[in-house]
Amino acid sequence: MFRYLIKISFDGTDYHGWQVQPNGISVQEKVQDCLEKLFGTRPMLTGCSRTDSGVHAKEFYCHFDLENKIACDGIVKGLNSVLPKDIRTLDCHLVDNDFHCRYNAVAKNYIYRFDTALIQSPFNCRFALHYTGKIDVELMNEFCKKIVGTRDFSGFSSSKRTVTDTVRTISECYVTQQGNIIELSITGNGFLYNMVRIIAGTALEVAQGKIDVSNIDYVINSCERSLAGKTLPPCGLILNKVFYSGEF
Amino acid sequence: MFRYLIKISFDGTDYHGWQVQPNGISVQEKVQDCLEKLFGTRPMLTGCSRTDSGVHAKEFYCHFDLENKIACDGIVKGLNSVLPKDIRTLDCHLVDNDFHCRYNAVAKNYIYRFDTALIQSPFNCRFALHYTGKIDVELMNEFCKKIVGTRDFSGFSSSKRTVTDTVRTISECYVTQQGNIIELSITGNGFLYNMVRIIAGTALEVAQGKIDVSNIDYVINSCERSLAGKTLPPCGLILNKVFYSGEF
Repeated sequence: MFRYLIKISFDGTDYHGWQVQPNGISVQEKVQDCLEKLFGTRPMLTGCSRTDSGVHAKEFYCHFDLENKIACDGIVKGLNSVLPKDIRTLDCHLVDNDFHCRYNAVAKNYIYRFDTALIQSPFNCRFALHYTGKIDVELMNEFCKKIVGTRDFSGFSSSKRTVTDTVRTISECYVTQQGNIIELSITGNGFLYNMVRIIAGTALEVAQGKIDVSNIDYVINSCERSLAGKTLPPCGLILNKVFYSGEF
Repeated sequence: MFRYLIKISFDGTDYHGWQVQPNGISVQEKVQDCLEKLFGTRPMLTGCSRTDSGVHAKEFYCHFDLENKIACDGIVKGLNSVLPKDIRTLDCHLVDNDFHCRYNAVAKNYIYRFDTALIQSPFNCRFALHYTGKIDVELMNEFCKKIVGTRDFSGFSSSKRTVTDTVRTISECYVTQQGNIIELSITGNGFLYNMVRIIAGTALEVAQGKIDVSNIDYVINSCERSLAGKTLPPCGLILNKVFYSGEF
């Protein structure tokens, strides 16, 4: 048995998230369909993260097992020849049989994008949340500093979460602006269900003056979902980078 | 009667071009539907150009008549509240009753985009032709210089064209490169059916060495469609700007 780790990238707009769903086509299902077309068998496909419906990935890793040893280059080219254009295979590595793309990931970097143009260009609408209010980037950055650290983030998570350990370490968080586009970048060793979208929503409410940045420690420590900001829509969220320790 | 000129922008990927078609939804039909929702009547909508299926517009003008005088700002906001995100109304002006968005346009600027990344990012695939061969930008620019001028461009037009006067003036044509993206920009007083996509295709064949740049004058003068390059796909084509003389 040989285990293959592939790096893919996708525009999540037209997919029901990563994981196979009964009510729509997921990225996992689409990639599995294409693997089946290529290899005649339908390998189980394990993803590095359960991205939600409409969320994008610049980098997303998944692994699968095959009986035969196949050239990685051929897997990349073969998959791209059958995948739709909104999903691309960027890379493929043969990895150890005990490698797991989710458990071996040591950190992930997400970006949440706001488009503050008065009228949003149709060329940007798939990959940014349109928001025309004023955003105080400096205030957002003050909030970001307070988010960094090892904390119980249960207040920044959907009640639908299934894990019990809700402590996560955020190693870096900051906001940048380029023209109309404001990006919140956040890196951590793991994220709870909806955590980035709730952090982005809280950053926005801080920038709007609805939540006082000096209260953020209290909001985090309270572990009260109702004290944090709203969950922002998926269109602005991009899984930007997944970190593994060492080479494959 | 009052005539309104609106400037719109659209991602043409999911539309069957501008003009109402029996076999799919066009941009014209979608905007007319939204005008009907807003005003209760379905005004005739005239466009500045017959963009093909899958072609995009950063700027596209269309006009329609209404019995009543309505605030232009309200038309912009109203339309955007009912239009899908891939079509936006950018602007609206009350114009003279004899203004015609097609006949009054003095020039148009189109951009054809090539993406030369080895694997095309899903974030770029809607708005560029993926082409992984080598492109000699300097050679393309030599070709562009030869295209500028007042010429009979019938050889650079689909046989489906309906006009008889095939002389057009190209005032500017050049190619730029930024990272993986190569853009051909072309400005002229008018364009024949498929003309920009055929010029872009010829530029590509010149850059590939398939057509000798010193033969371009001969190719143009021959008025032979078969001597020019292939018609490139619509995804790379963007109507970038429409010029009118004077203010509205």
